[in-house]
Amino acid sequence: MHHLLRVSPQTVHWGYFSKAVAPALTVRSGDRVTIETLTHHANDDHERMVAGDPGAESVFAWTCEHKAVPRRGAGPTTGPFTYGEGEGVGVHLLTGPVVVEGAEPGDVLEVRILDVMPRPSCNHAFLGRSFGSNAAASWGFQYRDLIEEPKPREVITIFELDTTAEPTARAVYNYVWTPQTDPDGVVHPTIDYPGVKVDPATVRRREDILRNVQVPARLHFGTMGLAPAEADFVSSIPPSYSGGNIDDWRVGKGARMYYPVAVAGAYFSVGDPHAAQGDSELGGTAIECSLTGEFELVLHKKADLPGTLLEGLDHPLLETEELWSVYGFTYANYLATLGPEGQTTVAETASLDPAMRDAFRKLRRFLMTVHKLSEDEAIALMSVAADFGVTQVVDGNWGVHGSIRKCVFGPR
Amino acid sequence: MHHLLRVSPQTVHWGYFSKAVAPALTVRSGDRVTIETLTHHANDDHERMVAGDPGAESVFAWTCEHKAVPRRGAGPTTGPFTYGEGEGVGVHLLTGPVVVEGAEPGDVLEVRILDVMPRPSCNHAFLGRSFGSNAAASWGFQYRDLIEEPKPREVITIFELDTTAEPTARAVYNYVWTPQTDPDGVVHPTIDYPGVKVDPATVRRREDILRNVQVPARLHFGTMGLAPAEADFVSSIPPSYSGGNIDDWRVGKGARMYYPVAVAGAYFSVGDPHAAQGDSELGGTAIECSLTGEFELVLHKKADLPGTLLEGLDHPLLETEELWSVYGFTYANYLATLGPEGQTTVAETASLDPAMRDAFRKLRRFLMTVHKLSEDEAIALMSVAADFGVTQVVDGNWGVHGSIRKCVFGPR
Repeated sequence: MHHLLRVSPQTVHWGYFSKAVAPALTVRSGDRVTIETLTHHANDDHERMVAGDPGAESVFAWTCEHKAVPRRGAGPTTGPFTYGEGEGVGVHLLTGPVVVEGAEPGDVLEVRILDVMPRPSCNHAFLGRSFGSNAAASWGFQYRDLIEEPKPREVITIFELDTTAEPTARAVYNYVWTPQTDPDGVVHPTIDYPGVKVDPATVRRREDILRNVQVPARLHFGTMGLAPAEADFVSSIPPSYSGGNIDDWRVGKGARMYYPVAVAGAYFSVGDPHAAQGDSELGGTAIECSLTGEFELVLHKKADLPGTLLEGLDHPLLETEELWSVYGFTYANYLATLGPEGQTTVAETASLDPAMRDAFRKLRRFLMTVHKLSEDEAIALMSVAADFGVTQVVDGNWGVHGSIRKCVFGPR
Repeated sequence: MHHLLRVSPQTVHWGYFSKAVAPALTVRSGDRVTIETLTHHANDDHERMVAGDPGAESVFAWTCEHKAVPRRGAGPTTGPFTYGEGEGVGVHLLTGPVVVEGAEPGDVLEVRILDVMPRPSCNHAFLGRSFGSNAAASWGFQYRDLIEEPKPREVITIFELDTTAEPTARAVYNYVWTPQTDPDGVVHPTIDYPGVKVDPATVRRREDILRNVQVPARLHFGTMGLAPAEADFVSSIPPSYSGGNIDDWRVGKGARMYYPVAVAGAYFSVGDPHAAQGDSELGGTAIECSLTGEFELVLHKKADLPGTLLEGLDHPLLETEELWSVYGFTYANYLATLGPEGQTTVAETASLDPAMRDAFRKLRRFLMTVHKLSEDEAIALMSVAADFGVTQVVDGNWGVHGSIRKCVFGPR
């Protein structure tokens, strides 16, 4: 069975994972789904990334009378608001949730990414071309450590994606963020609430930037995963045991992600599409760029896991043609450790050191459980053949991934 | 001019960088040098990695009457000793120093690695075959976080390197470290002093380990660099601004490393040869395996640096065919920050977070100075195209590397 899930105010939820929202689609294990996703940064350049696009326009629609998707974030839904409904506690536009029939806690959902395609502009001035936005933002690693004036500052860089040959992205222009007033009259001096439309008249566009620089594209989904069990509405920002905002550029075409199912139905959502990102996502975002993915969802029942790759899996696992990766976080399950308030406080104690510790433990478990190595074998192998990298330092719950190449293993 | 620098007690120094030891060789800029290096772990399996090898035997020679290289480490040289002369404050066997004529502080030394070759066993039982040792050691990331008994423990795994086709390494056997008594009667309950010969009768070799596992080889030099200015004898363990124990597996054939010269003559040394290592060097070591390198040393005078890749360089820089990498450390120059005692205390405050900070700043400087980007351009580019990885978490001064691919830049 092949489904199509377009973006619309009814098929997206903004800024949170949730087991409590109405499913956008219900599928069976083995079904394929084409899923449109929108970047929550599209309004950084409305004319290139929203205007003329019926799906994007329907989702981003926001006037003083009508806000198509009012709640943005897991925060309060009754005012008065500081930033807006949901308070921006979570920022990513996610398509879904997709309920998988028969999924239960203890199962594992395999998400195969069969293809990833850019979403072209529908504005006649840019027809068929694809654009993305990079925000060097207040949550970036650089924000309190800048050397040029004014300090601090947030900067938006608009990129164009060229997919005619080997896909690359080139910068079009950038601008320093200036206070933006939303249709409800709230002024946003920084990027503190998603989907605020930047008024071009209020910013100074600098052209001719990053000359001769071409960024190799790495189309992928920054945020993808299942609804956690711990709370009904969970910020989309900190990644956790059921996935979410992992921000690994390897989660692209050909990849398979495995997620432990935490709630009945699994409640799979995907968004935060990226055209390119480096390990660490240093400035706070990737090239945030609307994409459409082709997915196949395969449910692995708890009883069938022993003896497979998925035995004992209680965290996300990536499989590509070349490697397996596990994801360590500052807190493996920050909701369990910090409680629901962790959604906003987790960033206060963000550190790579415990994330490295978590990644080490997860990869050791994988090698010992799945590859039947002794602890001594696993540690020797990790030391000489596993690569640990900085996934991100910008998502509150910082990430270190540990990867082991498949070629290391002969036939089992 | 082509030189050959063999290993011998006169051409190695053990466990430290030094501006004060007699040069093993003096070269001119542009000269080539074939340099033999020995792993300081060769005595983990004496019969495979030392026996019959005149160079290795001459260096490792140690009886109650004669210790060919008495000082091992930057520690005290007058007893009584806890571990031995030099006290193991620094462990790597380094070949050199090689003095470069005319090198002065402020210059940059470029070290081109033209080739890297394994050093075959000279023992008739293993003739022509190459071996290495991996130690899951007390300074490893896992040591206080083990799950199997006995805890804690150190484990040696001996690997054989197969270079007939695509080079790979396979485990031969492993053993848990047991107390070893050195020729001076000192008992080493852990791996606390380099070059102690393991008595095979005291350990239990476990064969048939890591079955069907083949580790892709990454021949490289873990420790390479110049003598720092801050002290006469500096532990080889913590990497710093003039290089040293960086432990990046990318420092292999075809790579160029650039080091700021800190003392007149540069005093280049190289060792800590590795057959393979993963990013993080998790257990404490790589596959430590004696190698011979073919090097070309090119001196770049301070006055010639402006406008080049090396302008403003005050830290190591890697260039390969694909990328440039900078190295962030917990402390960019731990000797300057912590004083000479930092050689032993730096590990107490080891953390990836400041190393990430340091790598970010160094890569930003590189992009702004060398590639003439504004800070905003540099940060956007880093966020979308630079990859930060965990170089090592075992060398006291922990490391994060930041890499940017050359293909990002068009013709300048």
